[in-house]
Amino acid sequence: MPLMKSWVTSANDAAHPFPLNNLPYGVFSVAEDDLRCGVAIGDMVLDVTAAEETGLIVLGEDPLFDLPFWNPLMEQGPAVWAALRNRLTELLSEGAEEQDKVEPLLVSQDDVQMHMPLAVSEYTDFYAGRHHATNVGTMFRGPENALPPNWLHIPIGYNGRASSVVVSGTDIRRPWGQLKGPNDALPRFAPSQRFDIELEMGAIVGTPSDGPISVQEADDNIFGYVLLNDWSARDIQAWEYQPLGPFQAKATATSISPWIVTKAALEPFRCDTPAREFELLDHLKDCGPMLYDIELEVTMAPAGQSETVIARTNYNEMYYSAAQQLAHHTTSGCPMNTGDLLGSGTISGPETQNRGSLLELSWGGKEPLTLDSDESRSFVQDGDTLTLKGHAKGDGYVIGFGTCSGTILPALEDPYKR
Amino acid sequence: MPLMKSWVTSANDAAHPFPLNNLPYGVFSVAEDDLRCGVAIGDMVLDVTAAEETGLIVLGEDPLFDLPFWNPLMEQGPAVWAALRNRLTELLSEGAEEQDKVEPLLVSQDDVQMHMPLAVSEYTDFYAGRHHATNVGTMFRGPENALPPNWLHIPIGYNGRASSVVVSGTDIRRPWGQLKGPNDALPRFAPSQRFDIELEMGAIVGTPSDGPISVQEADDNIFGYVLLNDWSARDIQAWEYQPLGPFQAKATATSISPWIVTKAALEPFRCDTPAREFELLDHLKDCGPMLYDIELEVTMAPAGQSETVIARTNYNEMYYSAAQQLAHHTTSGCPMNTGDLLGSGTISGPETQNRGSLLELSWGGKEPLTLDSDESRSFVQDGDTLTLKGHAKGDGYVIGFGTCSGTILPALEDPYKR
Repeated sequence: MPLMKSWVTSANDAAHPFPLNNLPYGVFSVAEDDLRCGVAIGDMVLDVTAAEETGLIVLGEDPLFDLPFWNPLMEQGPAVWAALRNRLTELLSEGAEEQDKVEPLLVSQDDVQMHMPLAVSEYTDFYAGRHHATNVGTMFRGPENALPPNWLHIPIGYNGRASSVVVSGTDIRRPWGQLKGPNDALPRFAPSQRFDIELEMGAIVGTPSDGPISVQEADDNIFGYVLLNDWSARDIQAWEYQPLGPFQAKATATSISPWIVTKAALEPFRCDTPAREFELLDHLKDCGPMLYDIELEVTMAPAGQSETVIARTNYNEMYYSAAQQLAHHTTSGCPMNTGDLLGSGTISGPETQNRGSLLELSWGGKEPLTLDSDESRSFVQDGDTLTLKGHAKGDGYVIGFGTCSGTILPALEDPYKR
Repeated sequence: MPLMKSWVTSANDAAHPFPLNNLPYGVFSVAEDDLRCGVAIGDMVLDVTAAEETGLIVLGEDPLFDLPFWNPLMEQGPAVWAALRNRLTELLSEGAEEQDKVEPLLVSQDDVQMHMPLAVSEYTDFYAGRHHATNVGTMFRGPENALPPNWLHIPIGYNGRASSVVVSGTDIRRPWGQLKGPNDALPRFAPSQRFDIELEMGAIVGTPSDGPISVQEADDNIFGYVLLNDWSARDIQAWEYQPLGPFQAKATATSISPWIVTKAALEPFRCDTPAREFELLDHLKDCGPMLYDIELEVTMAPAGQSETVIARTNYNEMYYSAAQQLAHHTTSGCPMNTGDLLGSGTISGPETQNRGSLLELSWGGKEPLTLDSDESRSFVQDGDTLTLKGHAKGDGYVIGFGTCSGTILPALEDPYKR
């Protein structure tokens, strides 16, 4: 499929992240406290809430865009998702009949503030990138025990904390936590010194389920994808995670990009999971290409300095697709709801520069990175801005995800003094 | 405080679980689909939704009981919680002026169906009972490594799945999962053969917080307590839990008792946590008695048979209070919301008969239990009904929790055939 032309001319640039082929969904405000659903087209946002109010978009009897999140649309299921996309394409295509009615509902992206695009019901984080699991396992348990025995048979995941998911642009406060170094006799309570990022994709459940679902059903139920940075305090994690997994280390914040890129927009970029040495059990087997070829990068910018690209990788490095993760998530009968967010797990590639966390990039702090400014980093420092970027490359166009960004604030001096 | 007398005479029985001193909150229906907020008094339920509609209870300008869960009241904070309790006490006390107006709003508990008393925001399960952690650790890692090194310094917890929390009386379907025995070359997908219970108390967050809170603030923010059974598939857990903790093993269901017993009702039963060999760090230190003396028991009844008491223990066996768990939960800045549910962790006591899970009671299946009917059990069998019961013993009265019960349905023959 080539670039689709829009009368919003900025969307017709072959390098623009938001062409008519994309149409990602977000929540924006121009005036404070007036949050509205919108779709990105070129440099503009179409006010979808207003388009529904004025009768330009009618998807049923009840309004779907009167609340400041996309969950009501997501609940409607694939037929309504397709109907909205078709209608938006009609309204925004070059030569659209109703251009004069749509034009007043456009706002420049320069003038908007973005908010959480969905109400996150529950948040699950996986550990399904093989290079990442191998790197971390090698550091923690040695190369011969790098991958746990279950890893090649199930997508390992754990429940995270939905209340801590924030939209890109939200500042991230360095957390306090209980820490104990290998040579300390006793733990102490102090700000994390090994605060890190995790470059991930987030899959958003649209259609709920109640009981085990197949990989194909899981893929059908997914609404779209975002970039996701699962901020991780490695020193808190090291002390707390045995035997029941990460808890406070992952509860400070998880940032997501503000635009939900729909499965429909990503359709041309589907690709297969990698070759496997163990065949998966039937209920987890691939039943078509369910990963996506999405180029990803991470940049770091110390306060007041320009950014350095510190990692480049691709979503196609995952060992398990989001559909396989969601199917596994339901095996025990676990009900899944509209707005559930599934983190892919850190996406690292085979080379040093493909690593999606500072833990891996600096090899546990032993090999600090050098930024373009000659500063060095093992983990994030106060004032640093970390940004994830991603896009899929089409034939004469790209499907962009926008950015997923966060700036580190210093830890509170005394977290109990208010 | 002695037994408080009510004009609802069944509430004046010294052994009744729901005297005027208790006033636990639930959601009930008489007609299908007409769910209402109610308070238990003796054998009756007072329709609190109707009491608000008729103006007998007025706590502010907006209604608090027009939705079928107690979250709107919980959000109001301690002053409104106390105002409601005072008003209910006034309306239901012996000699109440408005008895004739209240009487028509009572329904017999025999005629009601109970529903979830709250909308669970997020669910966290802890591992904070020392006897349980020692027993399980001994079975899995040997007696010398029973307690992980962090255990005496932080209440170990993991995030569970709110979507799987159900009210007492909901049937529990035996789950499928990926299993691999120690002698199996490869895993297989099959129904769990080691499906188990966990006897716990659940603490419910009333007041939200955003940032680290002290143990005292955490205690202030807790609204009340329920009985909680965290159904656990031990064979799924054994294969999946390394390195990121339990996931599908705990996602089938968690049952809670239908009545939220408020912190106010439990006030006379506060007690201290046990002696500690390691002093806790300041932010987790006890600052008053925040555990409760609540006697607990578990019964098992095979299909069509009477129940056998299989365990007796007490909530005062916990090493960490719910307030300490909630304080720990916020250390990294994790926002907590109204309706968050915190499972205490399995409550076992020092003796064999005090163990709160079948895993411990049957010592991993090596020492099956014998029921009164002479049947034996290592884990639950299809058709078994498992029931938790709990009460605090006052001076001439008890504060009962009702029961938390579930009957095991056989696993689906083929979970993907619908």
